[in-house]
Amino acid sequence: MRVYLDHNATTPLRAEARDAMLRAMDVVGNPSSVHAEGRAAKSLVEAARAQVAAALGAEGADVIFTSGATEAAALALAGRGLHGAEIEHEAVAAWVATDLAVNRAGMVTVTDPGQSTLQLANSETGVIQTLPEGLAVSDMTQAFGKLPLAFNWAGCTMALVSAHKLGGPKGIGALVIRRGTDLAAQLRGGGQEMGRRAGTENIIGIAGFGAAAAAAARDLADGAWDRVAELRNILEKAIEAGAPDTIFPGREAQRLPNTSCFATPGWKGETQVMQMDLAGFAISAGSACSSGKVRASRVLRAMGYDDDVASGAIRVSLSPSTRKDDVLRFAETWLAKRSKFAARAA
Amino acid sequence: MRVYLDHNATTPLRAEARDAMLRAMDVVGNPSSVHAEGRAAKSLVEAARAQVAAALGAEGADVIFTSGATEAAALALAGRGLHGAEIEHEAVAAWVATDLAVNRAGMVTVTDPGQSTLQLANSETGVIQTLPEGLAVSDMTQAFGKLPLAFNWAGCTMALVSAHKLGGPKGIGALVIRRGTDLAAQLRGGGQEMGRRAGTENIIGIAGFGAAAAAAARDLADGAWDRVAELRNILEKAIEAGAPDTIFPGREAQRLPNTSCFATPGWKGETQVMQMDLAGFAISAGSACSSGKVRASRVLRAMGYDDDVASGAIRVSLSPSTRKDDVLRFAETWLAKRSKFAARAA
Repeated sequence: MRVYLDHNATTPLRAEARDAMLRAMDVVGNPSSVHAEGRAAKSLVEAARAQVAAALGAEGADVIFTSGATEAAALALAGRGLHGAEIEHEAVAAWVATDLAVNRAGMVTVTDPGQSTLQLANSETGVIQTLPEGLAVSDMTQAFGKLPLAFNWAGCTMALVSAHKLGGPKGIGALVIRRGTDLAAQLRGGGQEMGRRAGTENIIGIAGFGAAAAAAARDLADGAWDRVAELRNILEKAIEAGAPDTIFPGREAQRLPNTSCFATPGWKGETQVMQMDLAGFAISAGSACSSGKVRASRVLRAMGYDDDVASGAIRVSLSPSTRKDDVLRFAETWLAKRSKFAARAA
Repeated sequence: MRVYLDHNATTPLRAEARDAMLRAMDVVGNPSSVHAEGRAAKSLVEAARAQVAAALGAEGADVIFTSGATEAAALALAGRGLHGAEIEHEAVAAWVATDLAVNRAGMVTVTDPGQSTLQLANSETGVIQTLPEGLAVSDMTQAFGKLPLAFNWAGCTMALVSAHKLGGPKGIGALVIRRGTDLAAQLRGGGQEMGRRAGTENIIGIAGFGAAAAAAARDLADGAWDRVAELRNILEKAIEAGAPDTIFPGREAQRLPNTSCFATPGWKGETQVMQMDLAGFAISAGSACSSGKVRASRVLRAMGYDDDVASGAIRVSLSPSTRKDDVLRFAETWLAKRSKFAARAA
C-alpha cells in the first residue's frame, strides 16, 4: 500500500470536483455561443467563478480562469519588471528581478510593495509571509485551501491560484485581480474572460475547480487542517527523536500546517526520494515542476543554507486524508534508511 | 428535443474521451514528480501524445500540449510578423498581417509560404485550402478529425489543433512542430513539454484529447464523414428548393463534409440564430469565439461579399451523430421562418 506524502506537488481529485466534472461533461455548448447550449455552458463557468471567488474571499474581484498558476504568473508579471525573492516558485521567478532579501527563517523583506511580488506560502518549507499593504502580486497557490485567507483583505492587487493544489484538476487556475485594474490579454483573438484571456474555456476543469474550492473552504472552516498540523508535528518530533541533528529549515517561522522540510547534510534529497519511493512513500526534493530534475533547493540556498544542506533536503507534505499510521510508518522507514546512510558515511 | 447543429463551435465529448478522463481522474501524481505516482502521470501524458501524433499523421514531430488552439496560435505566431488572410480565425489573425488575397470562393493566395500562416479549413464556410510547401504555420483546428490529413505530408513547419472540435474536452489543444524547429516558451518556470511550455499538465484533458483523437481517426477511416457530407448536401438542396435565391458562400470550393454557410440578404444572421434557437435548433452566425457578439462575418467580407450578405449568413455544422430527420426538420423550420421574413420584407 503506497503512502502519498507529496500533496504540495499535487493532491488527489476531490469527490466533489469529480462529480462536478462529470456533470460538466454532459454540457454540450461553447460558452461563447448565443444559443441555449452555449448559455448553459456559460452559466456553468460563471457559477464556478463565483465559487472560486467565495472560497478565496475575493467577492467583487475579477477571477480570470487560466490554464494554471504558471499562466496566471505570466499574465500578471511578464514585462513588468517587478521585484521578488529567490524563494518564489520558478513560474514567478522567471519574470521578476529576484533581488529581495530572504532571512534564515525564510521571511522576505519587501522594500517597494507596489513593484513587488511575494508568495503567501512557500511550497518547499511551508513558510508563510506577511503580505505588505499595496503589494502588486501574490502567489497564493500553496496557501489557498490550506490557510484561512481573503484576497479582499490581503492588500495585494493580484493573486495567482491553482486548482490542483486543493483537490481540483490539473491544468486550471486563475488570476484574481482587483476590479478596475488594467491588464492586457496575452492570449488574444476572442472576448473570453472579460477580454483578458482568449480561448474556449476549459469548462470541465473550471467546474472541477469551482467545486474543489468550495469543498476546500468548507473543510478548512471545519478544522480539517488542525489535525494535519498535529500529524506534521508528530512526524517532526519522531524524526528529531531518531535523528537529532536533522535540520528543519523554516521551522521557526509560521508555516503551512501540512509541510515539513528537513535536511540531512551529505545525503542527497534525490537519493532519499528514490529510496523512499521504493519503500512505498511518495515525497519530493524541491519543487516538482522542473521535469524530474532534482538539484540543490534554490529556496534553501536563498535562506542562507549551504549546498550540502540544500541538496540534502526533502519535503514531506500531508493532507487531511493522511493518517497517523502513514506518518509513523514514514518516520520509521526514513529513520532506518537514515541509519544506513550514517553507517555508510561513518 | 433539441437539435444541435453547431459542431464547428464545439462538439459533444466522445464516450472514449470520457472514459479516458475518468481513468485519468484516478491518477494521483504530478507528471514532473520522480516517484511512482509522478511516473504514472507522466506515462499517461506520453501515451496521449502518441495518440494525437498518430491521429494527425505527425509521428516523429513534437506535439506540445497547450490550453487550446488559441494558446498554440500565440506560441506559434506572436512576435513573428507572419502574413495571413482575413479569413483566419481571430486567434490567428490577432498575430499576423492579414494581407493575403482571398478570392470569391474563399481560396487564399500565399506569396511567401515561409513567412505565412494558412488555415487548412475555414470554420464558417468549410472551405479547404491547398497548403503550399514550406508554409510556416497552419491552423488545422477545423480539419483535424474531419478530413484525412497528415502533418508530416502537409508541407508546413507548425500546426495548431484543438481537442474540443473532434470530441475531446474544451481547454486542451496542441502545437505540432517539426522536430528541430526553434521555439521559445511563452509560459516559463518549469521544464514541461520539452521546455516549450511550462505549467503542470492538464492530464485529464490530455487523456481525453488522446482518446478523442484516436477515436476520430478511426471514425474518419471508417467513412463516418461521407454520410455527413450526404446529409449536408440534402440540407443544402432542401434550402435551395425552398428559397432559390439563398447564397452559399464557398460552395464552389472543396469544403469540409459537415459545414454549410448560407446567407439571406437583409435577414440578420443573429436574428436567424435566435429564432432557430427558440425553435429548438442550435446553429451559429460566424465564429462562436467572440463572447456572444454577433456581427457581419469577417470571413464573408474577405471573400468579397457585401455587408448585407455577410450579416445575413448562418453556419450549420453537422457531425456523424446528426440524423437525416434533424436536417430535414431544420430545413423545414428555417424555410417557414424564411417565408415570414420575406413576407415582412415585402
